[in-house]
Amino acid sequence: MQRYFINEDQIKNENNELLVYIDEADSHHIKDVMRMHLNEKVIVCIENKTNYLCEIILLSKKVVLRVIEELNENNELNINVTIAHGLVRKDKQEEVIRRLTELGCFAYLPVMMDRSIIKLNNKELKFKNERLERIVKEATEQSERNKKMLLLDVIAFNDLIKIFPNYDLVLFASVSEKNDLSLKEKLNIKENTKNILVIIGPEGGFSDSEIEKIKKTSAYTISLGKRVLRTETAPLCAMSILAYEGEK
Amino acid sequence: MQRYFINEDQIKNENNELLVYIDEADSHHIKDVMRMHLNEKVIVCIENKTNYLCEIILLSKKVVLRVIEELNENNELNINVTIAHGLVRKDKQEEVIRRLTELGCFAYLPVMMDRSIIKLNNKELKFKNERLERIVKEATEQSERNKKMLLLDVIAFNDLIKIFPNYDLVLFASVSEKNDLSLKEKLNIKENTKNILVIIGPEGGFSDSEIEKIKKTSAYTISLGKRVLRTETAPLCAMSILAYEGEK
Repeated sequence: MQRYFINEDQIKNENNELLVYIDEADSHHIKDVMRMHLNEKVIVCIENKTNYLCEIILLSKKVVLRVIEELNENNELNINVTIAHGLVRKDKQEEVIRRLTELGCFAYLPVMMDRSIIKLNNKELKFKNERLERIVKEATEQSERNKKMLLLDVIAFNDLIKIFPNYDLVLFASVSEKNDLSLKEKLNIKENTKNILVIIGPEGGFSDSEIEKIKKTSAYTISLGKRVLRTETAPLCAMSILAYEGEK
Repeated sequence: MQRYFINEDQIKNENNELLVYIDEADSHHIKDVMRMHLNEKVIVCIENKTNYLCEIILLSKKVVLRVIEELNENNELNINVTIAHGLVRKDKQEEVIRRLTELGCFAYLPVMMDRSIIKLNNKELKFKNERLERIVKEATEQSERNKKMLLLDVIAFNDLIKIFPNYDLVLFASVSEKNDLSLKEKLNIKENTKNILVIIGPEGGFSDSEIEKIKKTSAYTISLGKRVLRTETAPLCAMSILAYEGEK
């Protein structure tokens, strides 16, 4: 069923009925994209709180819904996976962000690495923008998740290393370290792992100096298989496997 | 190291040296895209046979290499995964085909399903074309595989069901069957499974009649997690997990 993320203040109690006032963008989606009709059902989600099954009671410039019942559903993983990804080209970013959202990723953290092809200057260091936020919202609704993937702002590689202690497990996906243990063996190391950080390089991979720095930390080097994956494929592969292992 | 797939007849024994005559397209890639120089090393692969480490000895209109040694490497999975995918739009096809090749997929089989948005008429039933073949070749070289993913021609859904007996295991990735066993539990059913067929729906999912037909076969229904994946994300997720399980 089609679902829409709304803010809590869009719900109003009127004559003992809960009504939902849909904003302009989602009203347009309901009327003109989905071409829904009166009495048709949709789900509205208040992030990190409740989902409601609703029916359409007014199809005007703005759409109004009536709450039928509160839903008890949770499609989120038990683990929080943050993907730290070497800054890649904008078109690749959008695809990766959309697919990671679908696959259940908790947060996306772009990292300025030595071999990142695009370089943000200080003025542009703000990575997030309306378009990316919109992609996340749409992918969250389409994949029926209960919360949106967090889009974090770009950080420098040296600052990435400083946040390792915030995570239960840090995984470093390396192409060159072929003899390392597989992700499978690493995931068996710790039970009850909740917060996982996965580090994936940009188009040209990690620089030697970055590899040296990571090797001095508690991060585990993992392999995503014998084949060399593109920078936009590796995050999807890692997230698919972690969701699979996290949803036993 | 950069690698190129060649035909066996491009290798010639001259004065007890094995020389490789690179074709025009790959010569262009070596000279103008990679900007390689004399004596630089590349790997050439004869599909399903041998890989050779070579050095560049002539950079003319066509490039010539000298074989240094035969390599003993295998980056292929032990399982052969065929992805049967509801026919999707051309731009999605290309992305799926590129990423499945990287991830180690054995064969891609497009299937005309009830809800496929694009419909091939008889004249266009030939799915493969030079552009798709080129995408597979490039992705094979980039991911350092030993063989190219097979691009099969489109078949009708009813013919898909007829080929189930050719496989050791047939997996049916369904969104609606949420209470089914996870892929993990299914993969534990059979050991020594070699040939696996995974069936994934098109944009609108499977039709009720297709689901009924599949349920009458030996196919196992699997879930790729609680979230609803797009038709172009599901094959990558399934292939990532199967490669992970197949490469223990």
